[in-house]
Amino acid sequence: MKRTPFVGDREYFPQIGRIQYEGPESDNPLAFKAYNPMELVGGKTMEEHLRFAVCYWHTFWGSGADPFGPGTRAFPWQVDGDAMTQARARIDAAFEFFTKLDVPFYCFHDRDLAPEGASVAESEKNLQTMVALAKERQQASGMRLLWGTANLFSHPRYMNGAATNPDLAVVALAGAQVKAALDATVELGGVNYVFWGGREGYSCLFNTDTRKELDHFARFLELARDYGRSIGFEGTFLIEPKPMEPMKHQYDFDAQTVIGFLRHHGLDGDFKLNIEANHATLAGHSFAHELQMCVDAGLLGSIDANRGNPQNGWDTDQFPLDMNDCVAAMAIVLASGGFQNGGLNFDAKLRRESTDLEDLFLAHIGGMDAFARGLVIAERMVKDPVLGRLRGDRYKSFESDLGQRFESGQLGLADLRNFAAGYGEPERQSGKQEQLENRMNDLMFA
Amino acid sequence: MKRTPFVGDREYFPQIGRIQYEGPESDNPLAFKAYNPMELVGGKTMEEHLRFAVCYWHTFWGSGADPFGPGTRAFPWQVDGDAMTQARARIDAAFEFFTKLDVPFYCFHDRDLAPEGASVAESEKNLQTMVALAKERQQASGMRLLWGTANLFSHPRYMNGAATNPDLAVVALAGAQVKAALDATVELGGVNYVFWGGREGYSCLFNTDTRKELDHFARFLELARDYGRSIGFEGTFLIEPKPMEPMKHQYDFDAQTVIGFLRHHGLDGDFKLNIEANHATLAGHSFAHELQMCVDAGLLGSIDANRGNPQNGWDTDQFPLDMNDCVAAMAIVLASGGFQNGGLNFDAKLRRESTDLEDLFLAHIGGMDAFARGLVIAERMVKDPVLGRLRGDRYKSFESDLGQRFESGQLGLADLRNFAAGYGEPERQSGKQEQLENRMNDLMFA
Amino acid sequence: MKRTPFVGDREYFPQIGRIQYEGPESDNPLAFKAYNPMELVGGKTMEEHLRFAVCYWHTFWGSGADPFGPGTRAFPWQVDGDAMTQARARIDAAFEFFTKLDVPFYCFHDRDLAPEGASVAESEKNLQTMVALAKERQQASGMRLLWGTANLFSHPRYMNGAATNPDLAVVALAGAQVKAALDATVELGGVNYVFWGGREGYSCLFNTDTRKELDHFARFLELARDYGRSIGFEGTFLIEPKPMEPMKHQYDFDAQTVIGFLRHHGLDGDFKLNIEANHATLAGHSFAHELQMCVDAGLLGSIDANRGNPQNGWDTDQFPLDMNDCVAAMAIVLASGGFQNGGLNFDAKLRRESTDLEDLFLAHIGGMDAFARGLVIAERMVKDPVLGRLRGDRYKSFESDLGQRFESGQLGLADLRNFAAGYGEPERQSGKQEQLENRMNDLMFA
Amino acid sequence: MKRTPFVGDREYFPQIGRIQYEGPESDNPLAFKAYNPMELVGGKTMEEHLRFAVCYWHTFWGSGADPFGPGTRAFPWQVDGDAMTQARARIDAAFEFFTKLDVPFYCFHDRDLAPEGASVAESEKNLQTMVALAKERQQASGMRLLWGTANLFSHPRYMNGAATNPDLAVVALAGAQVKAALDATVELGGVNYVFWGGREGYSCLFNTDTRKELDHFARFLELARDYGRSIGFEGTFLIEPKPMEPMKHQYDFDAQTVIGFLRHHGLDGDFKLNIEANHATLAGHSFAHELQMCVDAGLLGSIDANRGNPQNGWDTDQFPLDMNDCVAAMAIVLASGGFQNGGLNFDAKLRRESTDLEDLFLAHIGGMDAFARGLVIAERMVKDPVLGRLRGDRYKSFESDLGQRFESGQLGLADLRNFAAGYGEPERQSGKQEQLENRMNDLMFA
Repeated sequence: MKRTPFVGDREYFPQIGRIQYEGPESDNPLAFKAYNPMELVGGKTMEEHLRFAVCYWHTFWGSGADPFGPGTRAFPWQVDGDAMTQARARIDAAFEFFTKLDVPFYCFHDRDLAPEGASVAESEKNLQTMVALAKERQQASGMRLLWGTANLFSHPRYMNGAATNPDLAVVALAGAQVKAALDATVELGGVNYVFWGGREGYSCLFNTDTRKELDHFARFLELARDYGRSIGFEGTFLIEPKPMEPMKHQYDFDAQTVIGFLRHHGLDGDFKLNIEANHATLAGHSFAHELQMCVDAGLLGSIDANRGNPQNGWDTDQFPLDMNDCVAAMAIVLASGGFQNGGLNFDAKLRRESTDLEDLFLAHIGGMDAFARGLVIAERMVKDPVLGRLRGDRYKSFESDLGQRFESGQLGLADLRNFAAGYGEPERQSGKQEQLENRMNDLMFA
Repeated sequence: MKRTPFVGDREYFPQIGRIQYEGPESDNPLAFKAYNPMELVGGKTMEEHLRFAVCYWHTFWGSGADPFGPGTRAFPWQVDGDAMTQARARIDAAFEFFTKLDVPFYCFHDRDLAPEGASVAESEKNLQTMVALAKERQQASGMRLLWGTANLFSHPRYMNGAATNPDLAVVALAGAQVKAALDATVELGGVNYVFWGGREGYSCLFNTDTRKELDHFARFLELARDYGRSIGFEGTFLIEPKPMEPMKHQYDFDAQTVIGFLRHHGLDGDFKLNIEANHATLAGHSFAHELQMCVDAGLLGSIDANRGNPQNGWDTDQFPLDMNDCVAAMAIVLASGGFQNGGLNFDAKLRRESTDLEDLFLAHIGGMDAFARGLVIAERMVKDPVLGRLRGDRYKSFESDLGQRFESGQLGLADLRNFAAGYGEPERQSGKQEQLENRMNDLMFA
Repeated sequence: MKRTPFVGDREYFPQIGRIQYEGPESDNPLAFKAYNPMELVGGKTMEEHLRFAVCYWHTFWGSGADPFGPGTRAFPWQVDGDAMTQARARIDAAFEFFTKLDVPFYCFHDRDLAPEGASVAESEKNLQTMVALAKERQQASGMRLLWGTANLFSHPRYMNGAATNPDLAVVALAGAQVKAALDATVELGGVNYVFWGGREGYSCLFNTDTRKELDHFARFLELARDYGRSIGFEGTFLIEPKPMEPMKHQYDFDAQTVIGFLRHHGLDGDFKLNIEANHATLAGHSFAHELQMCVDAGLLGSIDANRGNPQNGWDTDQFPLDMNDCVAAMAIVLASGGFQNGGLNFDAKLRRESTDLEDLFLAHIGGMDAFARGLVIAERMVKDPVLGRLRGDRYKSFESDLGQRFESGQLGLADLRNFAAGYGEPERQSGKQEQLENRMNDLMFA
Repeated sequence: MKRTPFVGDREYFPQIGRIQYEGPESDNPLAFKAYNPMELVGGKTMEEHLRFAVCYWHTFWGSGADPFGPGTRAFPWQVDGDAMTQARARIDAAFEFFTKLDVPFYCFHDRDLAPEGASVAESEKNLQTMVALAKERQQASGMRLLWGTANLFSHPRYMNGAATNPDLAVVALAGAQVKAALDATVELGGVNYVFWGGREGYSCLFNTDTRKELDHFARFLELARDYGRSIGFEGTFLIEPKPMEPMKHQYDFDAQTVIGFLRHHGLDGDFKLNIEANHATLAGHSFAHELQMCVDAGLLGSIDANRGNPQNGWDTDQFPLDMNDCVAAMAIVLASGGFQNGGLNFDAKLRRESTDLEDLFLAHIGGMDAFARGLVIAERMVKDPVLGRLRGDRYKSFESDLGQRFESGQLGLADLRNFAAGYGEPERQSGKQEQLENRMNDLMFA
């Protein structure tokens, strides 16, 4: 579907037009150097491969506040008036931005779109009002919703968790929010619905019944799944792992923790994972590792594209520019057949010191170019005969009759022992890690 | 069973007699200040609670070598002669040490006890010879085997993993070792059998088929389980998580990863976890967290008692002296009903600079006193009405009718929403973390 | 000087009286179990040794906000009215708290005490007004100011640093604030003046001229020093190291970095260091290490007493309860002769989930008891003949004639070589680390 | 000087000839794709810019041993015979490797080249013998020595440090080694002499007199400096920082620590720093940060080119392939005027699993290509008008009269205050970090 630029009653970025591809020679900071949406890579366009999404929260709410000071940016959509008036201004700015940047998708939390009201019913009404506006703008522009979610961590009531809160009344309020957010997601044709477990975790092990809380969490996800399916949601539910922050320990620590949890509770038929690069590294993993663990389990859903700071131990949510990461991620996605429902959502924010309005565009352009380059290089990797051979040959012995019988469980430990006793010392096989890594650098600059 | 000091043909620690409890006033470094084996704590003796074990590898093989230099210690049991002669000297030194320290248990790898031979058959014979000597010494002294295991990581053939090696012939050699180690464990009445996944993991994601390797790993564990049960092993199989080192990534990253893996492959009926403190912290968790995750899953098997260095990112395997850890660990063990098959194995080593023979005794005495103190304080904690109340009260709302229906899956998301809509804003409940933590310090010095 | 409880026009903590020492048997959470102000430890009272201070910012401003949500606490001193009205309420609450907790000192940033005005002059006037009130309350109660400082990091203008800001006009505004804060500190008899380099550092190395910025920083400190001395400030200037957060890199990374900087710029006659425990661990050091580096340089000024979370990579500023840290810190302080101008300032904050007003008292009580216990145990350590001997004996060889000549620079490399050539292989000396660490645990529970 | 391939009595790499530049299209793993030694970049050849060196230790001694198992590689130069026979084989292999790889420099520790003897005198004689052979091979091939050093950490006698050992006799033995290593370095025309403080640090703060040890360290460096100058050494002394490992804390923690130490002891006229990438990241810094701190101080000497593993907390010493690091490093080197005495030494080792002899060549080729690419891209950066402007413009206000007076110390704090009072709120200046980072990626793929 062709998309149309959207400008509301007021133009929020009058100095910026639709961002164009100008190629690697351009030094126009407001143009793509690598991302050329309709360029074919291995049979699909870049746009189809990458499925970029802009997030509503950092991009339209991110003032630059941090624990040491308030925000540094005053956005033009922060107009005078009540919260709903501001919400209307913000949604126009958002769709203008989406369509000038020319991404196909966006993502939101319920509270990004519409303010919490004085009651559950008022909150629902606020959200419905804004969803109607979003739907109009989607139809006018061709934009689509990659995923919706509910913010179950900002309100003080969630300080001890939402689904895992020790107080049933708080759990119920979380349930009310998820119900409304699912309604909104379905209404807007959202392809996925995400749970990031904000404060589902603990600060202090000794005031916490972790078993009870995790059981509650599973129960809560079942309720959401059942409700979603009952209202016609056919997309994917996603859990986004994060190991810590804001809590000392977050229950959805990493991919393997979440995969084990989903399988244990029989949720792996409906839920997949949304992997964020910065959360991966906070958990002591590489971004590629977390993606691969999901692919191995058949549970890679979507990606939150960003980057941490290797020297800083918190979620810096920087825009993704590290080419090693972008290449590795796209290689794993390509090797697994490409995104289905998922995409690349920029869960990334400007640095506090980046106070020009154009910085929002610049940051996204950089991230999009990085992943476009990553895609092209990853395609080279996936097709490279050298890389494939260096890895594939290592496992050849399992293609033997004995290997097949081992894999299918037809051998016993004594059989293995007897084989080993007659075999002698196996020849040593170099892992060729340096050769592989060199090859990847060579392909990057081929 | 009463234990008897063992001294072989040669006395290796002639200057040291059996270590005695002398109480907190003593300043004899070679006496216990807190560990009084027959002292009752909550109805069981300290010895029954703590089930201390000495490990064969660090204590009798640990020369102090590190990546920057060779060992600093020459042990008196490193006698002239071939490897079997040395093994005989070492086993006498070991049992003398065990019984002078007066611990009830020990642990070993196959290669700690007996050298690898020139063939599978010779390796088996070496091990059998040494197992016969160990059995004699167990009978003479009353010592017991907490667990046996196979060293599947030191030999260069295992450089790319053992059960997960890309070469079937290496997998088979690993199988041969595990078979023999299980035979040995059964022969010696071992209560558990451990898998620490030495090099099961990867150095480079791009030469590795992680899915295939993990499938092989599960298959291998099944074979071991089946063989062990077939020869009468009735104890617990244990997996010991570690996140990294020696490999960049180890498959058994942490408790949740292992729990998920065991359940996925139907191994959780036979396998539990052996949690090591230093591995927990390398994985970005507290020791207490890892223990609690196991208890929640009903899968806490045993403990490798040691301590990492908070500023160093590798496995320092220091003796456990941090009282916060010892108290928290014992509180979790007590609250879960105490050890069944498991115990506290000192997987800990002297610093390279600790070169006196007596340092081996000093180090273990310190660790035993630390856990004895931890036990006494943990008993206070578990019985403390303040701590219990501060935690228990938080979850009271789930005792209501609605809470019970939520927990049993009889509510839907819409029910939750409706309850919330009628409830209003819940009162905020302080987590009382500071009060709880103060109380724990107060109990420590009560 | 005897202190008197202060209650202003309104009592903010009516349910809480002056906190009393009730001893280790007490289970009253609002009493001291270990801190007994007038108890003598090695010839000085606990109060004289520990010199506790309460910080104005976390304690009276800390709402519990974090990057994922707004504050959870509404303090009774957050009254209706303009900022100066609120400031007056807050100062009464603060002095009531100080004196009910019965600490001798407090600390503040300029903006904690008085709001920023619309101009430099108005800001100065606001601060002067509040300083006059503080002075009255000090005189009425006997409270003293441990240190003052200026908040040069919260206002958006300081996003790129204050003294190191690339914009001279921002540097000048920082200078104006420091001038007024020095005036205030002198007026209130403050014993120290602190620089914590909030945003003095960088987010991106490639937009930063680090050499220029550090030169500016030195220049700025000189100006402050000269001005302070000119108005009669006789106390100590302090720099508080922190390695990162909010910036990717903070210039005052750790003790050695700051010590080198002070010496290079000739500032070490007027400036010392204020060491914060959590900043030490973020820098990859132990708290004890940072203190020892300062003591070695003769530059230990004061301490910000708190604690980080070993699994979390940001400044959690928890109340100090880890006894290993409290003991080690007090042992270093005692061995260096005790605090001169410095003290123990609780730069610590309640967890976001701790929402009861009494939690403020509970948290401080826990920290005070921890350091009181630490003091008592440290006194045992410092006097312990075993610890002293184990360390002292190691360096005996330098008491020889040759050792003395080496230390005084009278030997050449060839002399050393010749001595070595004639000496043979030195006997190996065990570091006895395990024995020392055991002894420390024994003294803790003596 | 033109270099000539060297092959000794036996050819150790008969299957490998001199490595040639074949350009980016080549898929020959044993050819350079980017490193073209005589190619001009900004007026100097790549060879002159990069000054590559191969290290003797990892490359010719690195068997692949780690704390969990012995080596995996048996090198053909590990011939039968005594240690001196092996040393002669090794030096031939080394010069064959150097010259086939076609690097201009190499580096060694005394013990890499020649074995320790039974006495100081015998060790000296061994070294002199091997130095004579090295000199012949240098003359035959045109190879040069980038730096020499003494191994003061492997021998057990150095377990508690060398220059900082508590035992004077050990300090003296260290002095003897340094004297002989300086003699060797001068004899071979070495351009630098390095101190990496192996075990200069502590494992346990409480058995250590850190002040005394650091004073001894300074004294020891003075002796070495004086001796070196006395025998005609005109090159640079270098200290290589490392924060930890093998010791819990290493005294030469990072660049700022070492810079402060050198200045404090008046050693900064003779000593500069040798920055290793992996040591930088272990210290919580970026590689670029450490380089920049040295450049700012005028103390960047040389570089140990390698890479750590971002998920692993020990020194993995991988070959440098991360282009972000290579580009940033070369940009800083170029901006500071390029290497003087220093160069890029590959202090990097094969993975334990890389067991083919050719892997040694492959690994170095990858590292050389990475830095060659880094140089080309860095040259673009340094010349790029956009990057220069974005950074330079930020500091323009200091070019004003007031700015100049601030920088030269002619303003007081009151002057700053008065300027600020009249200025009003400064306009906010975006840091443009995203634009800068985008530009760097664009230049990388230009």
